[in-house]
Amino acid sequence: MTQSSSVGIVTPQRARFDAPLKLRSGGVLPGFELVYETYGTLNAARSNAVLVCHALSGSHHVAGVYADQPGNVGWWDNLIGPGRPLDTDKFFVIGVNNLGGCYGSTGPASINPATGKPWGADFPFVTVEDWVDTQALLADMLGIERFAAVVGGSLGGMQALSWALQYPGRIGHALVIAAAPKLTAQNIAFNEVARQAILKDPQFHGGNYYEHGVVPTRGLALARMVGHITYLSDDAMAEKFGRQLRHGKPVYSYDVEFEIESYLRYQGDKFAGFFDANTYLLTTKTLDYFDPAFAHGGDLTRTLSSASAEFLVVSFTTDWRFTPQRSKEIVNALLHSDKRVSYAEIDSVAGHDAFLLDEPLYHGVLSAYLANVQV
Amino acid sequence: MTQSSSVGIVTPQRARFDAPLKLRSGGVLPGFELVYETYGTLNAARSNAVLVCHALSGSHHVAGVYADQPGNVGWWDNLIGPGRPLDTDKFFVIGVNNLGGCYGSTGPASINPATGKPWGADFPFVTVEDWVDTQALLADMLGIERFAAVVGGSLGGMQALSWALQYPGRIGHALVIAAAPKLTAQNIAFNEVARQAILKDPQFHGGNYYEHGVVPTRGLALARMVGHITYLSDDAMAEKFGRQLRHGKPVYSYDVEFEIESYLRYQGDKFAGFFDANTYLLTTKTLDYFDPAFAHGGDLTRTLSSASAEFLVVSFTTDWRFTPQRSKEIVNALLHSDKRVSYAEIDSVAGHDAFLLDEPLYHGVLSAYLANVQV
Repeated sequence: MTQSSSVGIVTPQRARFDAPLKLRSGGVLPGFELVYETYGTLNAARSNAVLVCHALSGSHHVAGVYADQPGNVGWWDNLIGPGRPLDTDKFFVIGVNNLGGCYGSTGPASINPATGKPWGADFPFVTVEDWVDTQALLADMLGIERFAAVVGGSLGGMQALSWALQYPGRIGHALVIAAAPKLTAQNIAFNEVARQAILKDPQFHGGNYYEHGVVPTRGLALARMVGHITYLSDDAMAEKFGRQLRHGKPVYSYDVEFEIESYLRYQGDKFAGFFDANTYLLTTKTLDYFDPAFAHGGDLTRTLSSASAEFLVVSFTTDWRFTPQRSKEIVNALLHSDKRVSYAEIDSVAGHDAFLLDEPLYHGVLSAYLANVQV
Repeated sequence: MTQSSSVGIVTPQRARFDAPLKLRSGGVLPGFELVYETYGTLNAARSNAVLVCHALSGSHHVAGVYADQPGNVGWWDNLIGPGRPLDTDKFFVIGVNNLGGCYGSTGPASINPATGKPWGADFPFVTVEDWVDTQALLADMLGIERFAAVVGGSLGGMQALSWALQYPGRIGHALVIAAAPKLTAQNIAFNEVARQAILKDPQFHGGNYYEHGVVPTRGLALARMVGHITYLSDDAMAEKFGRQLRHGKPVYSYDVEFEIESYLRYQGDKFAGFFDANTYLLTTKTLDYFDPAFAHGGDLTRTLSSASAEFLVVSFTTDWRFTPQRSKEIVNALLHSDKRVSYAEIDSVAGHDAFLLDEPLYHGVLSAYLANVQV
């Protein structure tokens, strides 16, 4: 067995695109920037590049640490590095902060050149398809004609799926993890609660809170609390927190009594301290809109018939945000359109969050699959 | 088959209790009032009374309509009336608004005699056990020594269960529907989101919003939206709303796009227009605290050994708030302590809300069970 390690110290880079970008929402950006990171080395044939797409709150910082922030570990660091499933001795891995994000790529907090003020509420809606287009522009800039693989979990998996549909000639493998071909009404409902929490926060100021020097932290914290409930399984919450009382008995107060309350408040407040509320709003809409089969009368099989990538689809047994059934919709549609697809349903107690964790069976599946990806 | 009908026009009544009431939270009320309704006729032996307990947002108005409000139908009207499962030709049925409520019983919006102002944040926490005590005081006042049955769904089912434990000699049958022996961490988590939405609403004013002439409607609406998601099954939402777009296509706006958004906003706003935020807060805590086995080291079998009622436990297949598994915990503990218990798991797409609906199989089970209850 190979010894595995982290990629170590990494440095974000910045790409500038000066041509106007027309978005599917009808909005136009006069130009934009993307921040990204790379791990490993692009080979001479430029055939070993892998794009990692992030989910709702993720970023371009997928692996490694920063020299001046040794505690700031990439969100999928356990997956990427020499000897790890996404082996940087073999692959050249790219992480990119999506358009509309709040980690350095052009987003609602960026300056709108037309006004000299932050875009705020005027930042246009962006779709998964728009993101994929901008990722393709970044690939062009880096001289990458074709990705060996595009990989993502949750909303990231939707991007991998969309890559296979939008640029079938530019992607060898799509790894679609803990995702779904579109949101259910219940998924949209949770997003809508999150949005209303932010939109109704008096500090939101119609999206232009930057100018007021405030942040809608209350709404954003609530949104994140709701999100966290859907990321964890009922069983995982029972295991981690159960009905543990902070004081051993009820004290009859609205302060923390049960440990689960403390966890949620902490996660909510922490998130509200660094994430941009407009990016959160935009991204929940990006999720809601994703529905590649919509243009094909809802026929996912017909939709996927244009793909030429090979697929690995992975789901987790206790994921109730995107259940294994949702992954099977993708798998079945791929099979019905005669595509090559592998499917793994991983037994895990961790719920949706499992895609971020280092579960041996899960990482074993990814390692085995990626070992067979030709570069 | 008997023709069934509603109980028709009903009139709420009011009972006043002047003795101080000590609550389990340590709080004391100098006296209190309960509003209640009755349907059918108490027999000469006073042996045919059935108490119906309400859930989070329910009230004493369980059946029938008011003379001046013919559209205001009781929340369990489909269950109660001549020829209905809770047959008022046989039973004398009582509905009561619980202490701390906002439908007329003493609650946070009532005047605190010590200050001459609404109780607001000073209203003491109340537990299921406190509610059962006050319901027993009401029974005393009405000359009812023993209930033929106590019936409830959700939090109402918890009251029925608690009746069997607190007053084993005063209850013949406990009908525990869509309930659980205690909340899970996930259940508490959803309650906590609802509470934080209210507590952080700037119009909450620490619970004393009455004096400010405002209502924390934003927080209360959010709380109700979260609640509604947990009352409906994923499948029911898919059936009712799916991904139906109001305008047939995405319009890229934070206004209503998907019909599920419209439904949630409507339900939230409607609720915030009439329900009291402090009552909502209190009642979520009442739910969190309910855990009769806590005093017995978590041993539900030992806890239930003191009951002498016969039980009917009912669950619904798609209820993910209180799954069938939670009902089976009660059933198994009853079986292990040699109690008489019937159990029905009803196939339904409606989720937790199913307990309020007129599903033939469900009402058939209740009819059959209640027909065999001796009065």
